[in-house]
Order: sequence, then C-alpha cells, then structure tokens
Amino acid sequence: MNRKGILAVVSGFSGAGKGTLMKKLMEKYDNYSLSVSATTRAPREGEKDGKDYFFVSKEEFQSMINKDELLEYAQYVDNYYGTPKKYVEAELEKGRDVILEIEIQGALSIHGRYPDSLLIFVTPPSAMELKNRLINRGTETEENIKKRLNRAAQEAVGVENYDYLLINDDLDEAVERLHKLIQDQHMRVCHQLDFISDITKQLRTLE
Amino acid sequence: MNRKGILAVVSGFSGAGKGTLMKKLMEKYDNYSLSVSATTRAPREGEKDGKDYFFVSKEEFQSMINKDELLEYAQYVDNYYGTPKKYVEAELEKGRDVILEIEIQGALSIHGRYPDSLLIFVTPPSAMELKNRLINRGTETEENIKKRLNRAAQEAVGVENYDYLLINDDLDEAVERLHKLIQDQHMRVCHQLDFISDITKQLRTLE
Repeated sequence: MNRKGILAVVSGFSGAGKGTLMKKLMEKYDNYSLSVSATTRAPREGEKDGKDYFFVSKEEFQSMINKDELLEYAQYVDNYYGTPKKYVEAELEKGRDVILEIEIQGALSIHGRYPDSLLIFVTPPSAMELKNRLINRGTETEENIKKRLNRAAQEAVGVENYDYLLINDDLDEAVERLHKLIQDQHMRVCHQLDFISDITKQLRTLE
Repeated sequence: MNRKGILAVVSGFSGAGKGTLMKKLMEKYDNYSLSVSATTRAPREGEKDGKDYFFVSKEEFQSMINKDELLEYAQYVDNYYGTPKKYVEAELEKGRDVILEIEIQGALSIHGRYPDSLLIFVTPPSAMELKNRLINRGTETEENIKKRLNRAAQEAVGVENYDYLLINDDLDEAVERLHKLIQDQHMRVCHQLDFISDITKQLRTLE
C-alpha cells in the first residue's frame, strides 16, 4: 500500500488541552481528517455520537474486536477506547493527514503497526497548571481528578517513546507548532522514497 | 554529558547547493555553529584555510586520526575529510546548534555515535538540474562531473538512512525549511527529558 497521508498520533495528559487543540487545528487547516474513536464510556455533556466518539456498549465493542474492525484498543479508567480501522486507512489512502487522539497504550500499539506514524505528546507547562485545568473543566469529580493525576504520573514514564513533546502554553502557538510538526513529516525520507527512486534512475541515465 | 544543542548533519549531492544554503542560514540566524572539516584536498579558488576547511597534508590528517581528534573521517574521490571533535562538543555543551556539512559515510558514522543527531539530505529537484549546477559551477572538469554523478547515483542508495530529504528548489524557502527542521528538534522527546522528569516529580507531589 502506497500510503501518502501522514498518520499523526496525539496523546497527552487529561486537561492538557488536546481537545481544544484539535478543534482549532481542524478549523484552521483543511488537510486533516480526525479519526473518531469508539468508546464504552458515557457521553459528557454536549458530546455527540459519531462526532466526539462512537458511543457503544461493551457488547458492541467486543464485537468490533472480534471482527478485527479496530486498529487498536485499550482500557482506561474502567472504559474501553478503540480506533475504527476502515476510516483511517481510507483517508491515508486518499493522501489526507489523519490524526488519532488516543491514549498512550493505543499510541504505542499504533506505532508498532505503523512505524512511520508520528507520536506527539501534549503537556501543559506544569503539573499545577494541569490540576487547575482539570478543576476548571468542572465536569470531573474530585475523586476522578485524583485518579487522573495519579494516572498522569504513570503516563509520563511512557513519554520517552513519543517523537515530540508539545508544551501547550499558548493555544494559538501550540496549534501552529503542531501543524508544522505534522507537515514536516512529508519531508521525511520514508515519505520521499518515490522521489529518491526517481532521481536515482535519472542519475543512472545521465552517467 | 547533558548536551543541549542540536547536532544537525547536512549532506547531499555535490551541486545540490549545500554550501550556499549553509551560508544563507548562518547569515540569517545566529544560533548555529558550523563545524569546519579537515581535508587533504587542494583548496578551490577563493577557499580559505580555517574557514572553508582546515587544509592539511595526508601526514597531518593521519596524526589527527592517531590522536583521536576526529569525530569521523572518510575518503571521497581520493581525498580525506574529517570532523575535528573538540569544537563540535564544546559548542553543543554551550547549547549551540551545530551543523556538520559532511558526506554520507561520515554522516552515518556520526549518527551511530550520536543517535539524537538529525540527518538531512539536500537534493536538487532533478538529476538534470544537478548536472547543470555542476557544469555552471565552472570549477569541475568534465571527468570530475562524471565521477560526481556516478557517485551521486551510489549515494542515493544510502539516503534511506537519513531523517529528512530537503529538496532545494527555491533557495530562500529551503533555508527556512532547514531552519525549522533543526529548531523543531528541540521539541523532540529525547531533548525534553529534563522537562518530563520535572513534571513527573510535580505530579507525584500533587497526588
């Protein structure tokens, strides 16, 4: 398969601002396709089925696993999250850059399957800032915030396996840096093998 | 050693415009240190000792090898080229981004020694354009041009080991893309380990 789109995996601490970052990126640039994950967790207020997530039952999720319809799936705070395969592969095939906003287990699993994928980890500038953002979100119980901070400390250990760390201090700046990071991937040698093969053939003809 | 500068290795076909690219990059930005190679080849017209190269005899070059004063060295069209170690390590230590403009054998050897280094291969947009640039340079004999095109066809095989392919079509644009590629390296996880370690400690304190 000659895949021309870039597969970018964006993860980060809960409260790092990934959701807003993705929203702004999509608004500003039209070359991205955002993969919609399937999840067994309950919708938060305002979340729409098929847009924010495909909200499915545990039985439906299990059926997707059985039919090999997920690129990866993982468990996170008692719920399952997974990436439907069909959409991602179709968009990449069309040459669109696809963004997966998934958590760390899924990200590493995607990287194993697609070594050319780009792994970006979004972080707030400090742990205190992260705690404040979770509190200000107003949708998380105190218990959940503790769980998430606890989980974040564990997640940071896996960050070494990512390609880039994106510090989300100023939102507009972070959007720009994210866009450039992804676009620069098109210059990676692994995405330029056709060009290299062509120029090598030309050089041989000129000799 | 906590090395904070980025080590960028720039290679490319002879005639791809690397020299001009480096010159423009240095003029425009002041965060780069350009490593000066030692070579046993004769100076071209206008080249200055200590600026373009350290021009040394074969005996002097051998002595540098023996004293382990070279980061890497390689043979290319009957001459030796090498990178003096002291300058590169001192500049990286100061946090400056260091650029090595070296050929492919040396580049791969540097990458083995510094896995975090960035390997960029500069290419003209086509083989014909490369041939024309070599002819227009006016300093190469027809025999040498043939040798270089021949060598280029071989070099292209090793390009798979580079990180990025920089197509030098428009010079100013190529300078900008080169600068951004190198600066983005500061966001690489391997250069952000201190930040990650700090935020992990903070998260543990907040729990």
